[in-house]
Amino acid sequence: MSVTAPAGFEAAGVAVGLKSTGARDVAVVVNRGPLKVGAAVFTSNRAKANPILWSEQVVKDGVVEAVVLNSGGANCFTGSFGFQTTHQTAERAAELLGVGAGDVVVCSTGLIGTGDEVFRAKVLDGVQQGVAALSAAGGEDASLAIMTTDSKPKRAVHVGDGWTIGGMAKGAGMLAPGLATMLVVITTDVVLDAAEADAALRAATRVSFDRLDSDGCMSTNDQVTLMASGASGIHLPADEFAAALTAVCDDLAAQLQGDAEGASHDITIRVVNAGSEDDAVAVGRSIARNNLFKAAIFGNDPNWGRVLAAIGTTDAAFDPYDVDVWMNGVRVCTAGGPDRPREDVDLTPRATDLVVDLRVGSAAATIRTNDLTHDYVHENSAYSS
Amino acid sequence: MSVTAPAGFEAAGVAVGLKSTGARDVAVVVNRGPLKVGAAVFTSNRAKANPILWSEQVVKDGVVEAVVLNSGGANCFTGSFGFQTTHQTAERAAELLGVGAGDVVVCSTGLIGTGDEVFRAKVLDGVQQGVAALSAAGGEDASLAIMTTDSKPKRAVHVGDGWTIGGMAKGAGMLAPGLATMLVVITTDVVLDAAEADAALRAATRVSFDRLDSDGCMSTNDQVTLMASGASGIHLPADEFAAALTAVCDDLAAQLQGDAEGASHDITIRVVNAGSEDDAVAVGRSIARNNLFKAAIFGNDPNWGRVLAAIGTTDAAFDPYDVDVWMNGVRVCTAGGPDRPREDVDLTPRATDLVVDLRVGSAAATIRTNDLTHDYVHENSAYSS
Repeated sequence: MSVTAPAGFEAAGVAVGLKSTGARDVAVVVNRGPLKVGAAVFTSNRAKANPILWSEQVVKDGVVEAVVLNSGGANCFTGSFGFQTTHQTAERAAELLGVGAGDVVVCSTGLIGTGDEVFRAKVLDGVQQGVAALSAAGGEDASLAIMTTDSKPKRAVHVGDGWTIGGMAKGAGMLAPGLATMLVVITTDVVLDAAEADAALRAATRVSFDRLDSDGCMSTNDQVTLMASGASGIHLPADEFAAALTAVCDDLAAQLQGDAEGASHDITIRVVNAGSEDDAVAVGRSIARNNLFKAAIFGNDPNWGRVLAAIGTTDAAFDPYDVDVWMNGVRVCTAGGPDRPREDVDLTPRATDLVVDLRVGSAAATIRTNDLTHDYVHENSAYSS
Repeated sequence: MSVTAPAGFEAAGVAVGLKSTGARDVAVVVNRGPLKVGAAVFTSNRAKANPILWSEQVVKDGVVEAVVLNSGGANCFTGSFGFQTTHQTAERAAELLGVGAGDVVVCSTGLIGTGDEVFRAKVLDGVQQGVAALSAAGGEDASLAIMTTDSKPKRAVHVGDGWTIGGMAKGAGMLAPGLATMLVVITTDVVLDAAEADAALRAATRVSFDRLDSDGCMSTNDQVTLMASGASGIHLPADEFAAALTAVCDDLAAQLQGDAEGASHDITIRVVNAGSEDDAVAVGRSIARNNLFKAAIFGNDPNWGRVLAAIGTTDAAFDPYDVDVWMNGVRVCTAGGPDRPREDVDLTPRATDLVVDLRVGSAAATIRTNDLTHDYVHENSAYSS
């Protein structure tokens, strides 16, 4: 059901030829209200695609009527023609839906530099067909239409007592070819105002999508949009909604990690007893971005030396000679020296658990990443636009 | 000739069984004077190997009598036993040479966590044999003894008018298994005082070794040592010596890049018209560390979108929509939009030239890196300790 699980939403996913396979490639998600509350977070890359530049303006007033998403082209670095394509996409949807173009978010994903006349015509055709196909059962089709190199759609639903949150995501980790990676739409029928939606979304993404780092490469097109219809009539305490929203985001983040291109291990890096949460995140990210560590995990090698060498590049508070490292439950390093032998660690399962105990304070953070594999290199070098 | 090319130096390289192949694995380089000036730069990783901890103290007074180097074990994260091994290595060499242990630099390279009793005994044996074998023709043997996964030794000599600089390096890029990567010894018979040696070495390494970034992974054991014997009796103007030293360092850095494990392209990233040199370095490094760009180059794909997505993660001064990108002489991106078609770019040669024109100021910097290949993944995952 994904984005149409909550009351008040319709969606569609149609095929207009942006994908050479003929699969669905344009999705439309519409909020039928009564509330039209929206919030979004965007890539922090300064190199932003046209849909990002447009949508950043759309969400400023906290009102979002609909989201149009396309795969098969990122519409990034395509000049003013590309920006006009995004603008026309929003206008076409607004016209058909009887709303203002300034309340229509646009998302694109695919190769950077793709956004010519043919692309524009297909996207506009997709809007037309998508709006015509809107239905309260359209969530699944929509989740299929945003896939690029994803091997499967990503959907999540959280059902509360009389209220629901639904979501869909695309992205093969953070590492899809062309860098157009993660698009997420989350819907809810909870009663929220714009400030509540914005705060809840920022809090949830900070500890979920922001801590998924499969290859350190930041996209030009990443966007997470939350829409609230209020159709349940229920207003929740802020932390109850925040917790549920975070669970949905974390579920989708785990699905993205699990489908990361070429990966053979899903690595959960838990940094504990840090001096601050920022320190824990910095330490976790330094490991997630260390190619030598990631290649070792691919080779089922519990190479804790590479972990210490990675974290030694950060400014976080810890003593390199007072750090413990655990891999899949086995303490391989105690106080910066060897502990259990490597043979004790079984790294054959896909799920890999790394714990780094900084022994400084009580803060913690979890970063999700993947290993560095032959298939990663293959899929990101042999890709043809 | 390498380190024995300048007057006043002797060296040796011997085999004591640290390498399972039976190849040479301990090198000794001795300065016979009359000056005993030394300077060194070290990895900035906070996770420092025992030889780094020792050698940082040795060079503080600007006096270095000798350098002992071993391959076959990094002696990193081996506890106080490992530090004592380094200490005993310096003491044994000092005793045999009739100098103070506090003037003997020690360097180790190999797997992190390696440094047990067997390792210590072999290294001490190597010191004994190495000192006995010292000769003014020993530079080549020494350069062989420091190799690990290097496919060939790295040596450089600069001959001036009555003076000489010689050097040797080991390292398969920055990316050797176990993270024990780059060791360099440079010798000269120029007359230098300690402050001059230190200043010249820092200036030269800043624009050579510091700008070699094959995989973003910083070693625990990196060290570059400069020794000056003054045996030529010649004192050069500071810039003349600095220029020659920089040329030697750059030559060795290029050899390291060219022998980077698994690489199929040597990529020279030239960032021009930046607002500052720091900005140019930051932009170049963001590209050098972007796995998607590096995989694209492996696939001979001139994917300039990945270049813009990489530099967009920096704080450097530029407008993403006013940047030009050239690959192997072809302008593929003008003002943040597509220019020449990808078919115009021939990426089949190993030498790859990327120019990023930020169009902001007049500063520039060059970063050397390599592509991300199947062989890189293989060599860094299948490595067995």
